[in-house]
Amino acid sequence: MIQHSLLCTSCRREYPFGEIRPRCQQCGEPLELQKVSHATINVADSLTQTMLERYSAFFPFASIDPLLSLGEGFTPLSESPRLSSDLGVRRLLFKNETLNPTWSFKDRGTIAGIQHAAAIGCSRIGTVSTGNMAVSVAAYGARAGMETFVLVSDSIPEEKISPIAIHQPHLIRVNGDYGNLYFESVRIGTDLGIYFLNSDVPLRVEGSKTIAFEICEQLQLQVPDYVIVPTSAGGNLRGIIKGFEEFVLCGLIPRMPTIVCAQASGCAPIFNAWSTGKDSIERVQAPHTIAHAIENPFPPSGNQALRKIREHDGLCIAVSDDAILQAQRTMAREGIFGQPAAAVPLAALRQLRKEGTVTEDATVVCVVTGCGLKYTAALREQPISTTHCTLEQLPSVLASPRA
Amino acid sequence: MIQHSLLCTSCRREYPFGEIRPRCQQCGEPLELQKVSHATINVADSLTQTMLERYSAFFPFASIDPLLSLGEGFTPLSESPRLSSDLGVRRLLFKNETLNPTWSFKDRGTIAGIQHAAAIGCSRIGTVSTGNMAVSVAAYGARAGMETFVLVSDSIPEEKISPIAIHQPHLIRVNGDYGNLYFESVRIGTDLGIYFLNSDVPLRVEGSKTIAFEICEQLQLQVPDYVIVPTSAGGNLRGIIKGFEEFVLCGLIPRMPTIVCAQASGCAPIFNAWSTGKDSIERVQAPHTIAHAIENPFPPSGNQALRKIREHDGLCIAVSDDAILQAQRTMAREGIFGQPAAAVPLAALRQLRKEGTVTEDATVVCVVTGCGLKYTAALREQPISTTHCTLEQLPSVLASPRA
Repeated sequence: MIQHSLLCTSCRREYPFGEIRPRCQQCGEPLELQKVSHATINVADSLTQTMLERYSAFFPFASIDPLLSLGEGFTPLSESPRLSSDLGVRRLLFKNETLNPTWSFKDRGTIAGIQHAAAIGCSRIGTVSTGNMAVSVAAYGARAGMETFVLVSDSIPEEKISPIAIHQPHLIRVNGDYGNLYFESVRIGTDLGIYFLNSDVPLRVEGSKTIAFEICEQLQLQVPDYVIVPTSAGGNLRGIIKGFEEFVLCGLIPRMPTIVCAQASGCAPIFNAWSTGKDSIERVQAPHTIAHAIENPFPPSGNQALRKIREHDGLCIAVSDDAILQAQRTMAREGIFGQPAAAVPLAALRQLRKEGTVTEDATVVCVVTGCGLKYTAALREQPISTTHCTLEQLPSVLASPRA
Repeated sequence: MIQHSLLCTSCRREYPFGEIRPRCQQCGEPLELQKVSHATINVADSLTQTMLERYSAFFPFASIDPLLSLGEGFTPLSESPRLSSDLGVRRLLFKNETLNPTWSFKDRGTIAGIQHAAAIGCSRIGTVSTGNMAVSVAAYGARAGMETFVLVSDSIPEEKISPIAIHQPHLIRVNGDYGNLYFESVRIGTDLGIYFLNSDVPLRVEGSKTIAFEICEQLQLQVPDYVIVPTSAGGNLRGIIKGFEEFVLCGLIPRMPTIVCAQASGCAPIFNAWSTGKDSIERVQAPHTIAHAIENPFPPSGNQALRKIREHDGLCIAVSDDAILQAQRTMAREGIFGQPAAAVPLAALRQLRKEGTVTEDATVVCVVTGCGLKYTAALREQPISTTHCTLEQLPSVLASPRA
């Protein structure tokens, strides 16, 4: 069992674990749990075990309720020998987070947050999101029988509403500055006792650790050279880094991989700060990218992401929408259909290879964060090639399809 | 290793395993592999094992290429205590097939078919489908580097095309009677050496066995009383039945569960034949249901499904579109968002409880065949409840959301 306190990621001020408090009262930076340094994996057949049960020693829960689970985690790490050869790296693997219960990585953080809410006796949860996180919190909140609030912008299109609404949360369209909504929800949530499972709350970050844990296990505790993570708010990146840090501290792996924070050129606040040597991120004006899921102009964990990337000699990179769309197609040739944001790591790898930053002996893991069906409007940007024929013409078309 | 021959499901005529032949030359009924009666499970940590590796003794492959895999199978069996209490059954569990690589059960049969194609030296595959199977075959074919043909009807809407096209198969829109296309593809495929992985080819049926295997394992080799399967062509139902049969033959479980073939009232050819005591199915005229994925008016494995249901004292049932939509909402309250066809089992269970067919001491498994994002048009039939407010009104709205 790890020590139950939350620390500010910047000033290290300490807060009790039982509170609903994601950020430091003093400096405003996100809080996190202390790193686990003595723990082992509870190895069992993952067919009959939940993710939190397997990694329970790395979580601050006295007990775990398996009925809260929807079977999150344990996603495939799919190797692509043909593509690794095309790109000129030793091994290329995709950590395919689209096989989660709501088809994105968000479910890992949501289960950890829901388990925490249950542990501290909180039965009202919420989130500020219009995408993967909204769907994930709505699904898990419904399953747990918790009163669930999803705050969305008033201008959200209907097609994004219905996959949230099907889980029947309180769905609230808020008219006003959407950028403020995150900070308002933190404040109101603390006042009203509603646990807002936003993108970088401490327990969501803990949930993301399991991506790192599984990558290590699936590689037989060998460490990949690079792990490339599409980065928006910064919570998932923080969690993945913390996961590798804890496996190093526990002696399970010998070293950290190089972590790559991958953003879209149209909205790259962390990359911008990193590449210009700044200590803190600045709000991106007029963000625009096809990778909507990572279009966050002022990421709440941006500064902490920046600190961690620098601490571990990681990298930041930004890629164009064209490169993202090309990577989406390329990944689909490997059988994996990700949403545009999920193709950002592959686009980043191609660029890092071109620049020579990633060398040809490298083993690279791309984190595929969410499912391509999540955002089908992006598919209108992809070419579609079809052949038309009659039933009578079919044999000759099949015999020479390119004719 | 099981014996390598294919038998007609009706006249028992035998065919060699190495041929691409899904149906009997004599009577036209589907072929199948002999039942496995001596085999054990290769139990390992499923985090580092593929589905075919775990159940390799139940498959006719001398070796298994794990690189063909996209991480299919090993889907959650999620228990819903609240809903089982509402419905008045002892235990209710959802086998959630939406966590497959292309988000439907089809991936299990596709991997078995692709492995077979590779084993017999065939590098051209195809399928006739506009839905889950088309996407699955396109994804696995791309991954395997096989030339892949997907035959769709000329009238297919663009929104169904793009998730297939992203994997870049030969996508052929065929103008003509779509109902004949299945039989034409079987004929042409045999002639041209294109392995058509249609809905009820023997190896696809073998792949579906693993749903039964996993249910047994996840219940610690206890047998559920009822397993309810949405049924279209009949291949998945046949596979699930064969899986339970083989576990019984191998002494792994003591008895068969009661299998329920669940169809939509608007297209229920197997239910129609079963309930009127007929020996063979008749084509449904003007089929219509919101559960498009199971709208097959003349299922190619319909007769065999009927034989197996009768052999094992199973049940058939048909449910209305309204009941399906209601079940989709109810299931989403448990955190599981299935496409309409995937909600058919829950709608069926509600009806079977009302009729008293399923009793209150029953343990019931509903097979959730595909993901709700597959067919979002159906969501237009679901009510959406939202609240509007300004940022200033938010605290009071959160404090009393129903006001």
